[in-house]
Amino acid sequence: MHPGIDDLLTLLRFPSVSTKPEHRDDVRRCAEWLKAKLTSIGLTSELHETPGHPVVVGRNVHQPGRRTVMIYGHYDVQPAEPLEEWKTPAFEPTIRDGRIWCRGSTDNKGQLMAHLRGVEETLATGSDLPVNLIFLFEGEEEIGSPNLKPFLEAHRDELKCDVVAISDTGMVAPGVGTFTYGLRGIACLEALVSGPSIDLHSGIFGGAVANPNTAVAHLIASLHDKNGKVAVEGFYDDVREIEPWEREEWSKLGDTATETLSLTGSPELYGEAGYSELERRWARPTAEINGIGGGYQGAGSKTVIPREAMFKLSLRLVPDQKPEDILAKVEAHLKQHLPPGTRVQIHLGHTGQPYAMDPNSRFGMAARKALATAFDGKVALIREGGSIPIVQAFKDVLGVETILLGLALGDCQAHAPNENFPLENFEAGVRLNKILLHELAADS
Amino acid sequence: MHPGIDDLLTLLRFPSVSTKPEHRDDVRRCAEWLKAKLTSIGLTSELHETPGHPVVVGRNVHQPGRRTVMIYGHYDVQPAEPLEEWKTPAFEPTIRDGRIWCRGSTDNKGQLMAHLRGVEETLATGSDLPVNLIFLFEGEEEIGSPNLKPFLEAHRDELKCDVVAISDTGMVAPGVGTFTYGLRGIACLEALVSGPSIDLHSGIFGGAVANPNTAVAHLIASLHDKNGKVAVEGFYDDVREIEPWEREEWSKLGDTATETLSLTGSPELYGEAGYSELERRWARPTAEINGIGGGYQGAGSKTVIPREAMFKLSLRLVPDQKPEDILAKVEAHLKQHLPPGTRVQIHLGHTGQPYAMDPNSRFGMAARKALATAFDGKVALIREGGSIPIVQAFKDVLGVETILLGLALGDCQAHAPNENFPLENFEAGVRLNKILLHELAADS
Repeated sequence: MHPGIDDLLTLLRFPSVSTKPEHRDDVRRCAEWLKAKLTSIGLTSELHETPGHPVVVGRNVHQPGRRTVMIYGHYDVQPAEPLEEWKTPAFEPTIRDGRIWCRGSTDNKGQLMAHLRGVEETLATGSDLPVNLIFLFEGEEEIGSPNLKPFLEAHRDELKCDVVAISDTGMVAPGVGTFTYGLRGIACLEALVSGPSIDLHSGIFGGAVANPNTAVAHLIASLHDKNGKVAVEGFYDDVREIEPWEREEWSKLGDTATETLSLTGSPELYGEAGYSELERRWARPTAEINGIGGGYQGAGSKTVIPREAMFKLSLRLVPDQKPEDILAKVEAHLKQHLPPGTRVQIHLGHTGQPYAMDPNSRFGMAARKALATAFDGKVALIREGGSIPIVQAFKDVLGVETILLGLALGDCQAHAPNENFPLENFEAGVRLNKILLHELAADS
Repeated sequence: MHPGIDDLLTLLRFPSVSTKPEHRDDVRRCAEWLKAKLTSIGLTSELHETPGHPVVVGRNVHQPGRRTVMIYGHYDVQPAEPLEEWKTPAFEPTIRDGRIWCRGSTDNKGQLMAHLRGVEETLATGSDLPVNLIFLFEGEEEIGSPNLKPFLEAHRDELKCDVVAISDTGMVAPGVGTFTYGLRGIACLEALVSGPSIDLHSGIFGGAVANPNTAVAHLIASLHDKNGKVAVEGFYDDVREIEPWEREEWSKLGDTATETLSLTGSPELYGEAGYSELERRWARPTAEINGIGGGYQGAGSKTVIPREAMFKLSLRLVPDQKPEDILAKVEAHLKQHLPPGTRVQIHLGHTGQPYAMDPNSRFGMAARKALATAFDGKVALIREGGSIPIVQAFKDVLGVETILLGLALGDCQAHAPNENFPLENFEAGVRLNKILLHELAADS
């Protein structure tokens, strides 16, 4: 077993659940252990207070003329509940079947420690690192990183770097190095449709006034056309078309549609006409109703015309859509399509830019080479459908790209009971770290 | 003050709240008082047990060759809460401003007692009633009359009659006798639309699978066309058109649209093109979404594609639509319009036939004449938009029509705090009872 595993087991034993006040001290002790670990391998280290959980920063002695690489990770974890579904206790790491089973093993302590171990091994040989390194370990990723952006802003100069690397995304299959070069953005809004000033008896008044439940349905139905395309005017104006090389890369991934059908349990796949299942999830924008509600939802019937009904909408965006522009267009669409006899209030929610970096850029090529070396030549180039706000924060505050080199498999159960991390992924991560720093240091 | 008021005050003091177990004895004492009252005025009376609250039946000595008239009323009342909003205690009847203020004063003890007092006064003169009379007083109307139909079925022979009269509906204005000759029917269903087998992350899977929230919206939107008509095939096949005389009668009621706009507080009225506000509420069928729900409805956002979403639909029906036929058509419509990638389960709910009696029929004319005499010639002929299931029960079990001669005004606050009943309505009700029995007894 890899000698770095012992430290990982120690790190995993901290129940660093960031969302639970009763684990506040565990989170801090976890941060302090990381700080001490950084020092022990020959880095300088700092523990920075925030309004929430601490940020741990480690660095080597920076030298002019070298690239500066930041490696981000998070040491906080999701709650372990439901505890009864764990085969072995959530915070007692257990090794079986070639995997470490513990909350946080894959998300993100295992991946964080692979990088830390890679650096430790390099330094242990007596040689310096090929780059100026900054480790940035956060304790609030699982609660939305509320203090990360302010921290970056407050320490903009010390954290200046050329690129950020993160291992916190997925691999397409065991043994296949996976470079995530694009993420969808997001824009949220909530619409509250009102009609009568009080709930009305649908027998006495039904037929004479507009029903907010029905109005909400008409508004939602107006958002898509018959081909599954978003029917908001101008919605696709800035959408970058999928490149031929992307289609070629993704075609190597095999029959992902069958896998998605199985994972979702849907009766059949459905989406925008003219695009494959993978293209729809990774590279096409969507409008999804996350919540809808109005009137009587209990058992049996209550014959009411409710005074109001609401829906929550999130739009996933792709390059080069701009969240604010899309929200303005959707808001205008909803107002324009509002059924007679109703009013609408629209509350704009959070946004995140779509993200894409060029895998043929210098850092993109460095990441691909490192993955190819660490994974025996097998590298997949993918995008992901979700959004990772920290990537946006690094771009906004530090002005740099992020390379996403994930080590998590689909069955690693991140966020679920029986989370696990394959030992071979840890070892691959250690290899990856060493090669990555060299590749990022190289001139091209 | 009318000498019959004393008995009404006594009846009102029983807090006969049928829905509350702690008032079970109050309901029974109220029934026993009614039974004794019937006996005291010279009728035979019976208190019948049911699985719930008792039914009280009173009758005179029936003679062959006379018409048999049933007068229905209910002695149970709605809960009085919120108690703090009552100006005088809910179960201490108080007389001020020409009205009796008490829970149950208008719904239905005041109207019930007007009939009972009318009969008492007729009998007190020493003359017999002109008809075979059956008083049927129920104690479960406010909880949906669960035992009325079984009671009618069990006593079909003793309750055989030619017509039923009920005073438990509204008047269009003070001093205007109001004959309700039509009611809408009802048919309810609930649809549960499912998609994925688990809630999905709308970033990871959004675009590749159908969203049940969106599917529900499309189904609901498919139920109406642009003119506000129900777009279900065959929905209007059996709808009886509004007669010219009905339009004429209703045009006398003045600007009800302005009143409805004010009562509902809606931004504007909206309904089926080609019909007035009153016609839409009284004589046209509707499809109203009483409830809709799916996904995340709490504060903030949660980017989920829910595994299911639902809606509750009630259809108000008019003569000669048949609830079962309409439910079948709506069910077929929903299945036909189900968006791809989803499944739907439809649960059919309760139904009630639409009701209309001919105001020019023998009993219709008798009711109108009685109202004209009791109200100085002022009579309105109306329908109501709601449904009264007991009317259907009388028709189904006893095979007779019901004449609805309501004495409640819009500001009598039935079901609300400060319920009240005008003394003049009580007096008009007493007059009405005497004339009505004579008119119903007459040959034409």
